[in-house]
Amino acid sequence: MNVAVDAMGGDNAPEVVVQGALKAAAEAGVDITLVGDQKRLEKLLESYSSSSMDHVSVHHCDQVVLMNESPLRAIREKKSASIRVAFDLVKTGRAEAVVSAGHSGAALAAGVIGLGRMKGITRPALAGLFPGEQGDVLLIDVGANVDCRPAHLFQFGVMAHAFARTCMGVREPKIGLLSIGTEGGKGNEQVRQTRELFEESHLAFAGNVEGREIFTGALEVIVCDGFVGNVALKLSEGMAESVTGLLKKELWGTWPGRAALLLGRGTLDKFLGRLDYEEYGGVPLLGIKGIGIICHGGSSPKAIKNGIKLAVKYVRNDFLEKMGLELEEQGIAAD
Amino acid sequence: MNVAVDAMGGDNAPEVVVQGALKAAAEAGVDITLVGDQKRLEKLLESYSSSSMDHVSVHHCDQVVLMNESPLRAIREKKSASIRVAFDLVKTGRAEAVVSAGHSGAALAAGVIGLGRMKGITRPALAGLFPGEQGDVLLIDVGANVDCRPAHLFQFGVMAHAFARTCMGVREPKIGLLSIGTEGGKGNEQVRQTRELFEESHLAFAGNVEGREIFTGALEVIVCDGFVGNVALKLSEGMAESVTGLLKKELWGTWPGRAALLLGRGTLDKFLGRLDYEEYGGVPLLGIKGIGIICHGGSSPKAIKNGIKLAVKYVRNDFLEKMGLELEEQGIAAD
Repeated sequence: MNVAVDAMGGDNAPEVVVQGALKAAAEAGVDITLVGDQKRLEKLLESYSSSSMDHVSVHHCDQVVLMNESPLRAIREKKSASIRVAFDLVKTGRAEAVVSAGHSGAALAAGVIGLGRMKGITRPALAGLFPGEQGDVLLIDVGANVDCRPAHLFQFGVMAHAFARTCMGVREPKIGLLSIGTEGGKGNEQVRQTRELFEESHLAFAGNVEGREIFTGALEVIVCDGFVGNVALKLSEGMAESVTGLLKKELWGTWPGRAALLLGRGTLDKFLGRLDYEEYGGVPLLGIKGIGIICHGGSSPKAIKNGIKLAVKYVRNDFLEKMGLELEEQGIAAD
Repeated sequence: MNVAVDAMGGDNAPEVVVQGALKAAAEAGVDITLVGDQKRLEKLLESYSSSSMDHVSVHHCDQVVLMNESPLRAIREKKSASIRVAFDLVKTGRAEAVVSAGHSGAALAAGVIGLGRMKGITRPALAGLFPGEQGDVLLIDVGANVDCRPAHLFQFGVMAHAFARTCMGVREPKIGLLSIGTEGGKGNEQVRQTRELFEESHLAFAGNVEGREIFTGALEVIVCDGFVGNVALKLSEGMAESVTGLLKKELWGTWPGRAALLLGRGTLDKFLGRLDYEEYGGVPLLGIKGIGIICHGGSSPKAIKNGIKLAVKYVRNDFLEKMGLELEEQGIAAD
């Protein structure tokens, strides 16, 4: 198996991406193609002597999409942009998946232009998994589409439904629509119109839900636009970090607290690690004809490594075929 | 001092509201006027024998705004709605502040219609205080305005600026605009246009910030529309609850964890209590010519009590006069 990694994407690219790729190659037993500036990447690879060196190669390209560019225009104009070339490698059968910590909107555009959309899907989206008290909750979209129409939000629900059935093992996923009150009349215009689409569908729609439901786990899927979803994702991560930091600081200030910290640290770290993007690595881009994992812009080598491992897991589990079959069975193109 | 409490607002009204009011009267040494169905309220008051009974009176009204009503229409048509009558009591000098756990949009409309807006403000907003690592962060709006124009978001920033100077003791509050990336080109259309307004202003604008900044505390004010802000508020509260629940459950499962829990429980509770709406009670409605505290729909008696105590604090500290002077000094009407 070969994973194409966008070596130029991310705040600390290409250094951390190369380090993460080397670790992933060693731990996951896969080949990795780093897509980016050949000279720079080869120099970096030489500087990190690693036993997995043989499994990491470089595919040259001389452009990159910057974070302040308009993603669609950049992908159209920059044919040699690293994220675009990475998806080209999948298209031509030289890789099975793409991992990128670059501009998520650009990754979406490159995935769509390079591989096309799954049948019935016009707007692919990013799906983030949150640790709910009663079980995992899939929040979709967490950042690929910032201005959405109700029909797009409905598609997010359909894709998440298929994902929950194939990858989360939930037979009849319950879907909620993120809003600011559970009553039908509440929320903004977008929510009110989207609610009607869900109500008319065959999906198990549970109505509007509030932000707190992301952490109860009473529903398996929560739908929102990419602006709200990204704020929710980043807020949760920031809060997990703060909770860890402040709690440790406060506990350390008293003797009983210090003892508590030493005794309970393992549990605390395990718990909060579920919201740590270094641990989960990245989120899948659903709706394109291929596997793409989008990592944080600020990813560490560990986060990149885990993002690659997530891509490997999806490839090994025939994620794409299963999603395609599921979407077809649900007849979503007809909705 | 007399506080008018919307006895009919909230999921568990009027029972929990009456209980909370009795507690607040006892602890804060204020008089409270319960606004709502006289017969029902007097019967409830009789059933809770309390030493503070003499400080709690009833002002009859026979309507209530339901959660699924259009708030503006309801307030215009229902002249005897409890939230509207509560603000009327302030207007006629019979109360100094209003506390409500009912429909927040209706409270906004009732405040505006009953008392009017502060000079230069067209859209009052709800300001929520978050515990950041470096200090408190004011998020505005957390639910009063779901569909906002850029000019409204700018006003939220101006009001929060005045609030931070007068109530948080910050001389030069730094203001961020909530988005999904710090680059100017990122975010949705609303964010891009609002950013320009802040950049042209005299405020200390720090640019776009991501959701994680709500918990770092590097900025004192973060501006967003009421839909995003309400999702953020509810999500944070839900997460704090889940963290508490899961952590305690996981720690309890091992002997060292159990010991840690017993030793560190005080610190844990103190920390997470800062995000517990039972503790902070409610959030202030900024921009109306009066003091209004909005509590959660699902408020417990304790939450109502703390919401009333917050109102009392604002009255005692001449919050309204200070905000007015600050807004005048900043010359915001001219912006």
